[in-house]
Amino acid sequence: MEKTLWDEMEMTLKPVGYVRSGIAQPMLTAGEEDLALAERMEKIRRYHQKVKETVCELVIDPGLAGILEGIEDFSHILVLYWPHLIPESRRGLRRVHPMGRKDLPIKGIFATCSPARPNPILVSTVPLVEVAGNVLRVRGLEAVDGSPIVDIKPFSKSYHGAEEVRVPAWMEQIRRELEEAEGDH
Amino acid sequence: MEKTLWDEMEMTLKPVGYVRSGIAQPMLTAGEEDLALAERMEKIRRYHQKVKETVCELVIDPGLAGILEGIEDFSHILVLYWPHLIPESRRGLRRVHPMGRKDLPIKGIFATCSPARPNPILVSTVPLVEVAGNVLRVRGLEAVDGSPIVDIKPFSKSYHGAEEVRVPAWMEQIRRELEEAEGDH
Repeated sequence: MEKTLWDEMEMTLKPVGYVRSGIAQPMLTAGEEDLALAERMEKIRRYHQKVKETVCELVIDPGLAGILEGIEDFSHILVLYWPHLIPESRRGLRRVHPMGRKDLPIKGIFATCSPARPNPILVSTVPLVEVAGNVLRVRGLEAVDGSPIVDIKPFSKSYHGAEEVRVPAWMEQIRRELEEAEGDH
Repeated sequence: MEKTLWDEMEMTLKPVGYVRSGIAQPMLTAGEEDLALAERMEKIRRYHQKVKETVCELVIDPGLAGILEGIEDFSHILVLYWPHLIPESRRGLRRVHPMGRKDLPIKGIFATCSPARPNPILVSTVPLVEVAGNVLRVRGLEAVDGSPIVDIKPFSKSYHGAEEVRVPAWMEQIRRELEEAEGDH
Protein backbone atom coordinates (compact mmCIF):
# COMPACT_ATOMS: atom_id res chain seq x y z
CA MET A 1 0.00 0.00 0.00
CA GLU A 2 2.65 2.54 0.95
CA LYS A 3 4.70 2.09 -2.18
CA THR A 4 1.63 2.40 -4.38
CA LEU A 5 0.53 5.46 -2.50
CA TRP A 6 3.81 7.37 -2.67
CA ASP A 7 4.62 6.46 -6.23
CA GLU A 8 1.38 6.44 -8.10
CA MET A 9 -1.44 8.36 -6.50
CA GLU A 10 -2.08 11.87 -7.71
CA MET A 11 -4.84 14.27 -6.72
CA THR A 12 -5.94 17.00 -9.09
CA LEU A 13 -7.42 20.36 -8.15
CA LYS A 14 -9.08 23.06 -10.24
CA PRO A 15 -9.36 26.63 -8.93
CA VAL A 16 -12.80 27.55 -7.59
CA GLY A 17 -11.92 31.24 -7.73
CA TYR A 18 -9.10 33.71 -7.32
CA VAL A 19 -7.99 36.43 -4.92
CA ARG A 20 -8.29 40.10 -5.93
CA SER A 21 -6.02 42.04 -3.58
CA GLY A 22 -3.85 45.12 -3.26
CA ILE A 23 -1.04 42.82 -2.13
CA ALA A 24 1.01 42.23 -5.26
CA GLN A 25 4.08 40.41 -3.94
CA PRO A 26 4.83 37.71 -1.33
CA MET A 27 6.36 38.95 1.92
CA LEU A 28 9.82 37.71 1.04
CA THR A 29 10.96 37.39 -2.51
CA ALA A 30 13.96 35.56 -3.92
CA GLY A 31 17.21 37.45 -3.61
CA GLU A 32 16.33 38.99 -0.26
CA GLU A 33 17.83 36.22 1.85
CA ASP A 34 20.86 38.37 2.53
CA LEU A 35 19.16 41.50 3.80
CA ALA A 36 20.51 42.50 7.18
CA LEU A 37 18.33 41.11 9.97
CA ALA A 38 17.06 44.50 11.16
CA GLU A 39 16.12 45.55 7.65
CA ARG A 40 14.43 42.22 7.00
CA MET A 41 12.41 42.37 10.19
CA GLU A 42 11.29 45.91 9.53
CA LYS A 43 10.10 44.82 6.10
CA ILE A 44 8.18 41.90 7.62
CA ARG A 45 6.56 44.19 10.19
CA ARG A 46 5.38 46.67 7.59
CA TYR A 47 4.05 43.82 5.44
CA HIS A 48 2.25 42.20 8.37
CA GLN A 49 0.64 45.52 9.29
CA LYS A 50 -0.53 46.12 5.73
CA VAL A 51 -1.98 42.61 5.45
CA LYS A 52 -3.90 42.96 8.71
CA GLU A 53 -5.70 46.05 7.46
CA THR A 54 -6.29 44.90 3.89
CA VAL A 55 -9.77 43.90 2.77
CA CYS A 56 -9.53 41.71 -0.30
CA GLU A 57 -12.01 39.98 -2.58
CA LEU A 58 -12.48 36.28 -3.18
CA VAL A 59 -14.01 36.01 -6.63
CA ILE A 60 -15.78 32.64 -6.88
CA ASP A 61 -16.35 30.94 -10.25
CA PRO A 62 -19.85 32.04 -11.34
CA GLY A 63 -20.23 28.54 -12.81
CA LEU A 64 -20.51 27.22 -9.23
CA ALA A 65 -23.95 28.80 -8.71
CA GLY A 66 -25.50 28.08 -5.30
CA ILE A 67 -22.27 26.93 -3.64
CA LEU A 68 -22.06 30.03 -1.41
CA GLU A 69 -25.66 29.91 -0.16
CA GLY A 70 -25.76 30.46 3.58
CA ILE A 71 -22.13 31.53 3.97
CA GLU A 72 -23.25 35.03 4.96
CA ASP A 73 -24.40 33.61 8.32
CA PHE A 74 -20.81 32.89 9.42
CA SER A 75 -18.51 35.47 11.02
CA HIS A 76 -15.31 33.67 9.91
CA ILE A 77 -14.29 31.44 7.02
CA LEU A 78 -11.29 29.31 6.14
CA VAL A 79 -9.68 30.12 2.82
CA LEU A 80 -7.52 27.44 1.18
CA TYR A 81 -5.38 28.94 -1.58
CA TRP A 82 -2.40 28.20 -3.78
CA PRO A 83 0.73 30.42 -3.52
CA HIS A 84 1.20 30.56 -7.29
CA LEU A 85 4.26 32.85 -7.25
CA ILE A 86 6.35 30.36 -5.26
CA PRO A 87 8.58 28.50 -7.74
CA GLU A 88 7.62 24.85 -8.30
CA SER A 89 11.15 23.77 -7.32
CA ARG A 90 10.53 24.90 -3.74
CA ARG A 91 8.08 22.02 -3.27
CA GLY A 92 11.20 19.89 -2.81
CA LEU A 93 12.46 21.73 0.31
CA ARG A 94 12.53 19.75 3.56
CA ARG A 95 13.80 22.27 6.13
CA VAL A 96 13.92 26.07 6.38
CA HIS A 97 14.77 28.88 8.74
CA PRO A 98 11.32 30.21 9.81
CA MET A 99 10.54 33.34 7.77
CA GLY A 100 14.00 32.97 6.24
CA ARG A 101 15.55 34.28 9.47
CA LYS A 102 18.95 32.78 10.02
CA ASP A 103 18.83 33.90 13.68
CA LEU A 104 16.06 31.34 14.24
CA PRO A 105 16.77 27.59 14.33
CA ILE A 106 16.23 25.60 11.15
CA LYS A 107 13.01 23.53 11.24
CA GLY A 108 11.20 20.93 9.16
CA ILE A 109 8.69 22.43 6.71
CA PHE A 110 5.78 20.68 8.50
CA ALA A 111 6.73 22.53 11.71
CA THR A 112 6.47 25.91 9.93
CA CYS A 113 3.89 27.92 7.98
CA SER A 114 6.31 28.31 5.04
CA PRO A 115 4.54 28.54 1.66
CA ALA A 116 7.28 26.27 0.27
CA ARG A 117 5.73 22.84 0.93
CA PRO A 118 5.37 19.54 -0.93
CA ASN A 119 1.69 20.38 -1.49
CA PRO A 120 1.56 24.17 -1.25
CA ILE A 121 -1.97 24.72 0.01
CA LEU A 122 -2.17 27.59 2.47
CA VAL A 123 -4.94 27.83 5.06
CA SER A 124 -6.07 31.08 6.64
CA THR A 125 -8.99 31.86 8.96
CA VAL A 126 -10.35 35.33 8.26
CA PRO A 127 -13.37 37.45 9.18
CA LEU A 128 -16.02 37.56 6.46
CA VAL A 129 -16.84 41.23 5.91
CA GLU A 130 -19.41 41.09 3.12
CA VAL A 131 -20.97 38.80 0.52
CA ALA A 132 -22.00 40.30 -2.83
CA GLY A 133 -23.11 37.73 -5.39
CA ASN A 134 -20.11 35.55 -6.21
CA VAL A 135 -17.64 37.82 -4.37
CA LEU A 136 -16.63 37.45 -0.71
CA ARG A 137 -14.87 40.33 1.01
CA VAL A 138 -12.53 39.29 3.85
CA ARG A 139 -10.02 41.07 6.07
CA GLY A 140 -6.39 40.15 6.78
CA LEU A 141 -5.74 37.49 4.14
CA GLU A 142 -2.03 37.18 3.33
CA ALA A 143 -2.57 36.05 -0.27
CA VAL A 144 -1.17 37.95 -3.23
CA ASP A 145 -3.34 39.23 -6.05
CA GLY A 146 -4.34 36.48 -8.45
CA SER A 147 -3.82 33.53 -6.06
CA PRO A 148 -6.04 30.60 -7.10
CA ILE A 149 -8.58 29.64 -4.43
CA VAL A 150 -8.81 25.90 -3.69
CA ASP A 151 -11.65 25.81 -1.16
CA ILE A 152 -13.82 27.91 1.16
CA LYS A 153 -15.12 26.47 4.45
CA PRO A 154 -17.09 27.91 7.37
CA PHE A 155 -14.93 28.20 10.50
CA SER A 156 -16.17 25.57 12.94
CA LYS A 157 -14.69 25.55 16.45
CA SER A 158 -15.05 21.80 16.76
CA TYR A 159 -13.14 21.03 13.54
CA HIS A 160 -10.76 23.99 13.29
CA GLY A 161 -10.36 25.55 16.73
CA ALA A 162 -7.96 24.62 19.54
CA GLU A 163 -7.70 25.39 23.23
CA GLU A 164 -4.68 25.56 25.54
CA VAL A 165 -2.37 25.89 22.55
CA ARG A 166 1.38 25.56 23.11
CA VAL A 167 3.90 26.73 20.49
CA PRO A 168 7.72 26.70 20.62
CA ALA A 169 9.78 29.70 21.71
CA TRP A 170 10.82 30.67 18.18
CA MET A 171 7.21 31.04 17.00
CA GLU A 172 6.23 32.93 20.13
CA GLN A 173 9.20 35.23 19.51
CA ILE A 174 7.99 36.03 15.98
CA ARG A 175 4.48 36.77 17.25
CA ARG A 176 5.79 39.02 20.04
CA GLU A 177 8.05 40.96 17.71
CA LEU A 178 5.19 41.61 15.29
CA GLU A 179 2.88 42.73 18.09
CA GLU A 180 5.47 45.01 19.65
CA ALA A 181 6.03 46.58 16.29
CA GLU A 182 2.31 47.27 16.04
CA GLY A 183 2.36 49.08 19.36
CA ASP A 184 5.24 51.26 18.15
CA HIS A 185 3.65 52.44 14.93
CA MET B 1 -7.63 35.96 -16.78
CA GLU B 2 -10.76 34.42 -15.30
CA LYS B 3 -11.51 32.31 -18.33
CA THR B 4 -7.97 30.98 -18.45
CA LEU B 5 -8.04 30.24 -14.75
CA TRP B 6 -11.33 28.31 -14.68
CA ASP B 7 -10.70 26.40 -17.86
CA GLU B 8 -7.05 25.58 -17.93
CA MET B 9 -5.26 25.74 -14.62
CA GLU B 10 -4.74 22.49 -12.76
CA MET B 11 -2.86 21.87 -9.52
CA THR B 12 -1.41 18.49 -8.75
CA LEU B 13 -0.86 16.96 -5.31
CA LYS B 14 0.99 13.85 -4.21
CA PRO B 15 0.27 12.24 -0.83
CA VAL B 16 2.87 13.01 1.85
CA GLY B 17 1.57 10.17 4.00
CA TYR B 18 -1.56 8.30 4.99
CA VAL B 19 -3.81 7.84 8.00
CA ARG B 20 -3.73 4.58 9.99
CA SER B 21 -6.92 4.49 12.03
CA GLY B 22 -9.49 2.20 13.60
CA ILE B 23 -12.16 4.19 11.76
CA ALA B 24 -12.88 2.16 8.65
CA GLN B 25 -15.93 3.91 7.17
CA PRO B 26 -17.14 7.50 6.73
CA MET B 27 -19.87 8.60 9.12
CA LEU B 28 -22.59 8.37 6.50
CA THR B 29 -22.36 5.99 3.60
CA ALA B 30 -24.40 5.84 0.42
CA GLY B 31 -27.79 4.24 0.82
CA GLU B 32 -28.35 5.61 4.30
CA GLU B 33 -30.11 8.80 3.19
CA ASP B 34 -33.46 7.28 4.06
CA LEU B 35 -32.77 6.19 7.63
CA ALA B 36 -35.34 7.63 9.99
CA LEU B 37 -34.09 10.85 11.56
CA ALA B 38 -33.81 9.49 15.10
CA GLU B 39 -31.88 6.44 13.93
CA ARG B 40 -29.61 8.59 11.77
CA MET B 41 -28.86 10.98 14.62
CA GLU B 42 -28.10 8.19 17.04
CA LYS B 43 -25.65 6.78 14.52
CA ILE B 44 -23.99 10.18 14.13
CA ARG B 45 -23.73 10.56 17.92
CA ARG B 46 -22.06 7.20 18.38
CA TYR B 47 -19.66 7.94 15.52
CA HIS B 48 -18.80 11.37 16.90
CA GLN B 49 -18.10 9.89 20.32
CA LYS B 50 -15.87 7.18 18.88
CA VAL B 51 -13.90 9.70 16.76
CA LYS B 52 -13.32 12.00 19.76
CA GLU B 53 -11.66 9.20 21.71
CA THR B 54 -9.71 7.64 18.86
CA VAL B 55 -5.94 8.09 18.66
CA CYS B 56 -4.78 7.49 15.10
CA GLU B 57 -1.44 7.52 13.33
CA LEU B 58 -0.25 9.80 10.56
CA VAL B 59 2.41 7.83 8.71
CA ILE B 60 4.61 10.31 6.85
CA ASP B 61 6.56 9.28 3.74
CA PRO B 62 10.03 8.27 5.01
CA GLY B 63 11.42 9.82 1.81
CA LEU B 64 10.62 13.26 3.28
CA ALA B 65 13.38 12.98 5.89
CA GLY B 66 13.73 16.06 8.09
CA ILE B 67 10.36 17.56 7.24
CA LEU B 68 8.92 16.86 10.73
CA GLU B 69 11.83 18.33 12.69
CA GLY B 70 10.54 20.53 15.49
CA ILE B 71 6.88 19.52 15.20
CA GLU B 72 7.08 17.87 18.63
CA ASP B 73 7.17 21.36 20.20
CA PHE B 74 3.58 22.10 19.15
CA SER B 75 0.50 21.04 21.15
CA HIS B 76 -1.80 21.09 18.08
CA ILE B 77 -1.42 20.53 14.36
CA LEU B 78 -3.57 21.01 11.27
CA VAL B 79 -4.03 17.90 9.17
CA LEU B 80 -5.05 18.34 5.53
CA TYR B 81 -6.29 15.07 4.06
CA TRP B 82 -8.20 13.64 1.12
CA PRO B 83 -11.51 11.79 1.72
CA HIS B 84 -10.65 9.04 -0.75
CA LEU B 85 -13.82 6.98 -0.21
CA ILE B 86 -16.10 9.80 -1.39
CA PRO B 87 -17.03 9.09 -5.03
CA GLU B 88 -15.41 11.46 -7.56
CA SER B 89 -18.86 12.37 -8.91
CA ARG B 90 -19.70 14.12 -5.63
CA ARG B 91 -17.16 16.85 -6.46
CA GLY B 92 -19.92 18.22 -8.73
CA LEU B 93 -22.42 18.89 -5.91
CA ARG B 94 -23.32 22.53 -5.23
CA ARG B 95 -25.77 22.31 -2.30
CA VAL B 96 -26.53 19.76 0.43
CA HIS B 97 -28.54 19.25 3.57
CA PRO B 98 -25.92 19.55 6.36
CA MET B 99 -24.96 16.03 7.48
CA GLY B 100 -27.57 14.73 5.03
CA ARG B 101 -30.31 15.80 7.46
CA LYS B 102 -33.44 16.74 5.60
CA ASP B 103 -34.77 18.47 8.74
CA LEU B 104 -32.02 21.09 8.32
CA PRO B 105 -32.15 23.72 5.55
CA ILE B 106 -30.24 23.03 2.33
CA LYS B 107 -27.01 25.04 2.11
CA GLY B 108 -24.23 25.73 -0.39
CA ILE B 109 -21.26 23.35 -0.04
CA PHE B 110 -18.94 26.24 0.90
CA ALA B 111 -21.20 27.00 3.89
CA THR B 112 -20.84 23.41 5.17
CA CYS B 113 -18.07 21.02 6.21
CA SER B 114 -19.33 18.36 3.78
CA PRO B 115 -16.55 16.13 2.39
CA ALA B 116 -18.29 16.38 -1.01
CA ARG B 117 -16.56 19.50 -2.40
CA PRO B 118 -15.13 20.62 -5.76
CA ASN B 119 -11.63 20.20 -4.24
CA PRO B 120 -12.15 17.68 -1.43
CA ILE B 121 -9.40 18.67 0.98
CA LEU B 122 -10.49 18.36 4.59
CA VAL B 123 -8.86 20.36 7.37
CA SER B 124 -8.83 19.31 11.01
CA THR B 125 -7.05 20.80 14.04
CA VAL B 126 -6.04 18.03 16.44
CA PRO B 127 -3.89 17.62 19.56
CA LEU B 128 -0.51 16.05 18.82
CA VAL B 129 -0.10 13.19 21.27
CA GLU B 130 3.28 11.73 20.29
CA VAL B 131 5.96 11.79 17.60
CA ALA B 132 7.85 8.57 16.86
CA GLY B 133 10.12 8.79 13.84
CA ASN B 134 7.97 9.35 10.78
CA VAL B 135 4.72 8.63 12.66
CA LEU B 136 2.58 11.26 14.38
CA ARG B 137 -0.07 10.15 16.85
CA VAL B 138 -3.08 12.51 17.12
CA ARG B 139 -6.45 12.42 18.90
CA GLY B 140 -9.90 13.02 17.46
CA LEU B 141 -9.22 12.98 13.71
CA GLU B 142 -12.33 12.09 11.70
CA ALA B 143 -10.41 10.51 8.80
CA VAL B 144 -10.94 6.93 7.75
CA ASP B 145 -8.15 4.39 7.60
CA GLY B 146 -5.98 4.86 4.52
CA SER B 147 -6.86 8.50 3.83
CA PRO B 148 -4.01 10.20 1.92
CA ILE B 149 -2.44 13.09 3.83
CA VAL B 150 -1.94 16.28 1.82
CA ASP B 151 -0.17 18.52 4.35
CA ILE B 152 0.71 18.94 8.02
CA LYS B 153 0.98 22.41 9.58
CA PRO B 154 1.57 23.68 13.11
CA PHE B 155 -1.56 25.32 14.55
CA SER B 156 -0.87 29.04 14.74
CA LYS B 157 -3.46 31.26 16.42
CA SER B 158 -2.69 34.19 14.15
CA TYR B 159 -3.23 32.23 10.93
CA HIS B 160 -5.76 29.63 11.98
CA GLY B 161 -7.55 30.82 15.12
CA ALA B 162 -10.62 33.07 15.42
CA GLU B 163 -12.28 35.02 18.21
CA GLU B 164 -15.89 36.05 18.73
CA VAL B 165 -17.04 33.43 16.26
CA ARG B 166 -20.65 33.48 15.08
CA VAL B 167 -22.26 30.49 13.34
CA PRO B 168 -25.82 30.03 12.07
CA ALA B 169 -28.55 28.35 14.13
CA TRP B 170 -28.42 25.07 12.19
CA MET B 171 -24.73 24.52 12.94
CA GLU B 172 -25.19 25.49 16.58
CA GLN B 173 -28.07 22.97 16.73
CA ILE B 174 -25.83 20.16 15.46
CA ARG B 175 -23.15 21.01 18.01
CA ARG B 176 -25.66 21.15 20.87
CA GLU B 177 -27.24 17.84 19.94
CA LEU B 178 -23.86 16.12 19.86
CA GLU B 179 -22.87 17.58 23.22
CA GLU B 180 -26.15 16.65 24.87
CA ALA B 181 -25.71 13.15 23.60
CA GLU B 182 -22.29 13.02 25.24
CA GLY B 183 -23.78 14.03 28.57
CA ASP B 184 -26.34 11.24 28.31
CA HIS B 185 -23.95 8.36 27.74
